[in-house]
Amino acid sequence: MAILITDIGELTTNTEGGPLREAAVVVEGERIAWVGSASAAPAADARVSVDGRAVLPGWVDSHTHLVFAGDRTAEFEARMAGAPYRAGGIATTVAATRAATDATLSTNLARHIAEARRQGTTCLETKTGYGLNVADERRSARLAAEIADEVTYLGAHLIPEGYSADAYLDLVCGEMLDAVAPFVRWADVFCETGAFDADQSDRVLRAAAARGLGLRVHGNQLGHGPGVQLAVRHGAASVDHCAYLTDADIEALAASDTVATVLPACDLSTRQPLAPARRLLDAGVTVAIASNANPGTSYTTSMAYCVATAVLQMGLSVAEAVYAATAGGAKALRRTDIGSIAAGTRADLHVLDAPSATHLAYRPGVPLTAAVWLQGQRLDISGPDPI
Amino acid sequence: MAILITDIGELTTNTEGGPLREAAVVVEGERIAWVGSASAAPAADARVSVDGRAVLPGWVDSHTHLVFAGDRTAEFEARMAGAPYRAGGIATTVAATRAATDATLSTNLARHIAEARRQGTTCLETKTGYGLNVADERRSARLAAEIADEVTYLGAHLIPEGYSADAYLDLVCGEMLDAVAPFVRWADVFCETGAFDADQSDRVLRAAAARGLGLRVHGNQLGHGPGVQLAVRHGAASVDHCAYLTDADIEALAASDTVATVLPACDLSTRQPLAPARRLLDAGVTVAIASNANPGTSYTTSMAYCVATAVLQMGLSVAEAVYAATAGGAKALRRTDIGSIAAGTRADLHVLDAPSATHLAYRPGVPLTAAVWLQGQRLDISGPDPI
Ligand SMILES: [Zn+2]
Ligand SMILES: [Zn+2]
Repeated sequence: MAILITDIGELTTNTEGGPLREAAVVVEGERIAWVGSASAAPAADARVSVDGRAVLPGWVDSHTHLVFAGDRTAEFEARMAGAPYRAGGIATTVAATRAATDATLSTNLARHIAEARRQGTTCLETKTGYGLNVADERRSARLAAEIADEVTYLGAHLIPEGYSADAYLDLVCGEMLDAVAPFVRWADVFCETGAFDADQSDRVLRAAAARGLGLRVHGNQLGHGPGVQLAVRHGAASVDHCAYLTDADIEALAASDTVATVLPACDLSTRQPLAPARRLLDAGVTVAIASNANPGTSYTTSMAYCVATAVLQMGLSVAEAVYAATAGGAKALRRTDIGSIAAGTRADLHVLDAPSATHLAYRPGVPLTAAVWLQGQRLDISGPDPI
Repeated sequence: MAILITDIGELTTNTEGGPLREAAVVVEGERIAWVGSASAAPAADARVSVDGRAVLPGWVDSHTHLVFAGDRTAEFEARMAGAPYRAGGIATTVAATRAATDATLSTNLARHIAEARRQGTTCLETKTGYGLNVADERRSARLAAEIADEVTYLGAHLIPEGYSADAYLDLVCGEMLDAVAPFVRWADVFCETGAFDADQSDRVLRAAAARGLGLRVHGNQLGHGPGVQLAVRHGAASVDHCAYLTDADIEALAASDTVATVLPACDLSTRQPLAPARRLLDAGVTVAIASNANPGTSYTTSMAYCVATAVLQMGLSVAEAVYAATAGGAKALRRTDIGSIAAGTRADLHVLDAPSATHLAYRPGVPLTAAVWLQGQRLDISGPDPI
């Protein structure tokens, strides 16, 4: 069954020669079979006209924390009233997550993923890190693996109460790692003052790499620190946050295969400086944009909001921001099948109610998602349960 | 026909004693008939449970420019690439608007109003100002009056090519004013370097007041200037933009009945400083938040985006920002029937897919509008024409 999607006003391909005007794509099964000019489109079994709308690859949201229960609205309100962000807020979610049933955790995760998909996200990474004991980290990984596209082990999110750092690291690098490994592709560490220092983070990354996991790092969020250099040294796929960067950090990233993932909604929601994405791009670093969706520091699934912020406030062009939120995310997840539209890539398409991707920044906040195809299947984006 | 809307998790009333928890309202015809605790709700002909969701008054968007044709995407892209905002871009829209048919202008306006309503806006002001000759200003006013809730005459938007300032002001204060007056409640002037100076603005406001129109002023957008003081002196309902304010400006506003309307999306989209809404509130000024939806400087109808920006980046609490975008807008339009939820007010209700209004800032960019009632009628918010 081949479906021709045609009358595309602007097609963002993230390939050489793109974007295309008056374009069409053919979807066969889960894949893109053909991309080209609408006037040269081949015959197909079905035809959908998007009437001049813009089409781009589905968002690749490479950084979320959505295996959680509980509510942190009050903490957000306190922060907006002037209380500074402290990583300790995570403990609130840990307690609620441990107390939740499997069904609650799965329902929460599925609801947030569905919300993201309605807004055009077609690949979503999520993390453990609110379990912080062997059973709850394993459970989080297992439930995430059932629903999310990519799963990351973040036992090294915080040292939970009742543990010395060394004792907890023994667990994270030993029994807990063994317990989660069957369910996850990635391991991550929160390398920050108040969480894990350089040596501790190094130990986590070495253990995870030895277990065959790909590496990611939370670094340089709340101040300058060793996270970026550590990520580069370990060949991590991505180092995330990157709000505080020295020239040496940026040079190290530029000379590496490590993606710098910026999280604009988190920066705003914690009233931190916006990450220097412009400096990163100018230095030749590959940048990804992700939502960091989580109940504490960035409770949004809106990649469009992150892209608009990157353009309006971080100095990126729309093309750069859209690339970072699609192909950049794919690179941060070391995926070549997603994040671009070309023959052979996964048929993950995001149709906007607008003639160009520019409208994502030109019309901030306006819900512009008109249609979504995920692995060749058109999604129902009609919204959550009606009232 | 009385409709009970119940199981409201949080009801923002904008009245003394609000917000209410576990609340209900009764709608009769176009009005709210009763507000109180869900457990004490009276009998009604129909019952709608919103299952713990938050309900607030519909947004009052007191500042838009939506009688227009043409496209300024390229100008936006150039600005994002570093070109500064100049009021001259308005001329592009003037040319396209003059060239458009009535049907095009009406369809454009109706489409944008429908988009705003789907996002919870239940009262929308719009302006002329892209006609700038007698026939096209009159036409813009006439078409706007057919669809928009409030219409403002902005002949004094810019001095069009081919006119001296004096000759154009003669027109604006004479023949053009006479031509639009049957269709508009308000008059406005763009008091800014490059548009109209203090004396010229004064002349426009005097003429409009003499004609019985209410007054509004665009002022202090691109730099310090006389707009605020002029607005206060004339008893204008609102002075809008207010990005550059002296202490004297703020004191004058605080001692007046003139609302200071801030336009956060415009500030971001023009890369101007965000208006000092926190200072205004601290000084006791009534603040409104509006979208300034227009194709040049702020092409968004998303009041939720404006509210989220006010909280995350301008230092307002959610309660302050929501008040400014509902009751504040109503005050800027000198309306007492909208912007609050109490027995007798217009039944304009905005139901969120969230347990509290806090989520508007906690979850920026996520489309949260779950249902809208406008003058007691439930709207279809299912989106624009499907693909
Ligand atoms: Zn994170
Ligand atoms: Zn304006």
